[in-house]
Amino acid sequence: MALDGTSLIGFSRGSGREAPFRGVNATTGRVLEPPYYSCDADDVDRAVNLAVSAFGAYRALPRQRRAEFLRQIATRIEELGDPLLERAMEESALLPARVRGERDRTCLQLRFFAGMVEEGSWVDARVDTADPERRPLPKPDVRSMLRPLGPVAVFCAANFPLAFSVAGGDTASALASGNPVVVNAHFAHPGTAELVGTAVRDAAQATGMPEGVFSLLFGSGHQTGQALVTHPGIRAVAFTGSRRGGMALHQLAQSRPEPIPFYAEMGSINAVFLLPGALQQAGGPMAAGLYASINLAVGQYCTNPGVLVVPRGPAGDEFSAALAGKMRDAPPAPMLHAGILENYRRLVAARSKDARVRAVAYAETQDRAVPALFEVDAGVFMSTPELSDEVFGPSSLMVRCGGPEDALALAEALEGNLTASIWAGPGDEAAAAELVAVLEAKVGRIVFQGVPTTLEICQAMVHGGPFPATSDGRSTSVGGRAIERFTRPVCFQDAPDGLLPEELRNGNPAGIWRMVNGERTRG
Amino acid sequence: MALDGTSLIGFSRGSGREAPFRGVNATTGRVLEPPYYSCDADDVDRAVNLAVSAFGAYRALPRQRRAEFLRQIATRIEELGDPLLERAMEESALLPARVRGERDRTCLQLRFFAGMVEEGSWVDARVDTADPERRPLPKPDVRSMLRPLGPVAVFCAANFPLAFSVAGGDTASALASGNPVVVNAHFAHPGTAELVGTAVRDAAQATGMPEGVFSLLFGSGHQTGQALVTHPGIRAVAFTGSRRGGMALHQLAQSRPEPIPFYAEMGSINAVFLLPGALQQAGGPMAAGLYASINLAVGQYCTNPGVLVVPRGPAGDEFSAALAGKMRDAPPAPMLHAGILENYRRLVAARSKDARVRAVAYAETQDRAVPALFEVDAGVFMSTPELSDEVFGPSSLMVRCGGPEDALALAEALEGNLTASIWAGPGDEAAAAELVAVLEAKVGRIVFQGVPTTLEICQAMVHGGPFPATSDGRSTSVGGRAIERFTRPVCFQDAPDGLLPEELRNGNPAGIWRMVNGERTRG
Repeated sequence: MALDGTSLIGFSRGSGREAPFRGVNATTGRVLEPPYYSCDADDVDRAVNLAVSAFGAYRALPRQRRAEFLRQIATRIEELGDPLLERAMEESALLPARVRGERDRTCLQLRFFAGMVEEGSWVDARVDTADPERRPLPKPDVRSMLRPLGPVAVFCAANFPLAFSVAGGDTASALASGNPVVVNAHFAHPGTAELVGTAVRDAAQATGMPEGVFSLLFGSGHQTGQALVTHPGIRAVAFTGSRRGGMALHQLAQSRPEPIPFYAEMGSINAVFLLPGALQQAGGPMAAGLYASINLAVGQYCTNPGVLVVPRGPAGDEFSAALAGKMRDAPPAPMLHAGILENYRRLVAARSKDARVRAVAYAETQDRAVPALFEVDAGVFMSTPELSDEVFGPSSLMVRCGGPEDALALAEALEGNLTASIWAGPGDEAAAAELVAVLEAKVGRIVFQGVPTTLEICQAMVHGGPFPATSDGRSTSVGGRAIERFTRPVCFQDAPDGLLPEELRNGNPAGIWRMVNGERTRG
Repeated sequence: MALDGTSLIGFSRGSGREAPFRGVNATTGRVLEPPYYSCDADDVDRAVNLAVSAFGAYRALPRQRRAEFLRQIATRIEELGDPLLERAMEESALLPARVRGERDRTCLQLRFFAGMVEEGSWVDARVDTADPERRPLPKPDVRSMLRPLGPVAVFCAANFPLAFSVAGGDTASALASGNPVVVNAHFAHPGTAELVGTAVRDAAQATGMPEGVFSLLFGSGHQTGQALVTHPGIRAVAFTGSRRGGMALHQLAQSRPEPIPFYAEMGSINAVFLLPGALQQAGGPMAAGLYASINLAVGQYCTNPGVLVVPRGPAGDEFSAALAGKMRDAPPAPMLHAGILENYRRLVAARSKDARVRAVAYAETQDRAVPALFEVDAGVFMSTPELSDEVFGPSSLMVRCGGPEDALALAEALEGNLTASIWAGPGDEAAAAELVAVLEAKVGRIVFQGVPTTLEICQAMVHGGPFPATSDGRSTSVGGRAIERFTRPVCFQDAPDGLLPEELRNGNPAGIWRMVNGERTRG
């Protein structure tokens, strides 16, 4: 498919009047064709206004139609075939297996939400029937369910050109719950974005969706994103990226005349607690597992294990040496884009120069990221806030601590995180239980005997966590609950059956699980 | 019970060092005993720190213990007997039947949430079991449920000294979901607050709750509230009051180094659409019903019907005349406090002087609120934003419109509202369906053939709505879903059964409804 280089505004194209920018081969630095034209204020306005117009028709569609649309997007993405994978690899420097896996995950996710929409129970339908005989006042008939918020702005993530980008989890869950979506493409992978964007647009046309249900905007700077977040037609925003970028947009969203829900997933240090019994039992395999996790996709995961809590003593020393050896032997690798590489280089260089930190595996990063491993004493870690900052890339910091009470104090001092992990062995039972009691108030997900970088797509998954891991700790951007982010409950009191949504009608024609007079039933 | 006049900080009292203020008899203006001492920064700090300390122990309690605590609060409030009702009447000028009803509603609500906590399914437990044989990667075991956020600040509402105050819906739902609560008393009913506060404190002591699970702070100005909202230990805020107050606190909450969920319910104009068929059929009873609703508790409901959409023509004229007659005959009545009275006087006086508005029932408000009814043409209404502002008190504005397309345009122009109501009769079916399709994106609750001021406590109720009705349109402050506001999902991956919360364990020992591998089951 020939790339065009202009925004997709509903079923037409952006004006292409602004100065162009280009994608870059992230491995070679070579500039890629075609030029991409940043959209102007007019393009943003057209896209959002089309989304506003589409909202009424889109939310009124039978849920089977929305499911069909989502499945059609997955099919069309698969039909893009190898050219999509090749472009994504060029623009991200991610390896073939990873990009293929990410494409498959993107399609799995679209079908996962399609299945939820079709099944239908996620709307949390509640029916409380009337009792005209009740005294002192008759009881009204009250029914409610989740309904969509309206046009959602989605920001593509640098580190997931497919699964957290144009047709990623945010877009899939927003479309699934009945909201039009306007996507802000990431400047680092415009070609990938255009390919996926045309798949979504074609799916919308093929399944008879209203124009404006989807638009894709290109922009090299911050202007497009800021214009989107402050546009009165946008009703919610989903963002995956840095804390600085996320918080700037959060403040914009909350300072609008009409504040809107803003979901930023801003990364995390994902502490891994290695308890003494586990280290004794399986220090070697743990070093191998953590090495792989730290270096997965050149460490460019928001669930990357950035802090390892390792007991002092021989078993800890052995683990430290084993992991350091692997890290020193790891080859340098290209990162997603020059800004991310520069940020990584700066942060690990600073850490290597900190006299209180031991650089157990470190060499200077030039045009490839060199994996780096540091070690620090628990006391220094806890008294040095910047050591809790995320280092985005193939690096981790071992924090050496004394007994379990040290590990517990460290857990208590953690900021909000996406994950924490606990590796426990014989004799660690009490320490693990104490850690769980603290960590459940600190993170979105606690992983046992495993690495945080695996993120299953399923109903129970939570990919979120208290601030600063996200801007809204009540939500998850992965898993079944992600669909609830772009909804609110709407209630109907004493409504004639014919005016109710199908999900709330007498006799449950939708056949979904509901709560009827406080009891869960499918009847 | 003798009133003391100091804040309740956990199980002890505030310092009482700041300059005192006093409650006022809202009917006579007489100053009431005792003096109330605004808490100082130290008191706020102590209360929040106690709440932070209590959080770990409180959230770990078996759910039956939390239910027992909530029920004990209800019992203790009932045991306060007539002195509570008398003090609440003195401080609010609300009538005996209303205050008694509000007390009963408060206790009903506490028991409603106790029942939910005991039943337990509200935590939305999800279990996805492992599949070690899956290829290419084994499937992990993933489980999640809603867990509490942490200490919640609750602001008492002027217009509900019991049901939306110290032990009202916000406090009940926050305690139910496992969060300590620090209440900011309303300056207009400190005595009522202290009485209820001691009931909560006594219930906490009697049921062995950790100290700090509840505190009650007095303050005459904004300082106490601002100190609470900006305190790092506070994790969420619930507020019921004016748009100005709500938005000021919203900005504070969002500008903290760590932004927190902020739920403000800020009122609404609650448009009532009277369709032609309904007017023909039952104009008289509709006038009587709306008259009662507009004047309920001197119009001091956030669900007060502030706009009535009435067709032009003889039936509409007849309705207008009937309602105007009733409003003119209604006696003046004392309002909740001097500030609310002054605000009402100013707003209805301004409306009475507006040349484009017809004052069909109006007399100047002095020290008692005089019910007021205005009428305006739809065109003027839609081109005059300030006519959409809430007038808190016994007043409404009839908007006279042409055909159903006028009513529809008016619905489309509405801001976010708590409610809208539709009265439909023979021949109104199509117009009602069109209105529903528009209004479901504008309000939290659509009422049919009824008034918005009845607010049933049940699972399906929604008392919320898009901005500016609330600061967070995803939530409701009444009904079963209110409990979810102060929670977030927490996920456990590959956890040993013994380290899981009871709700997520194998074999479902809690006996709750769960989603297991995507299927709802109680097994």
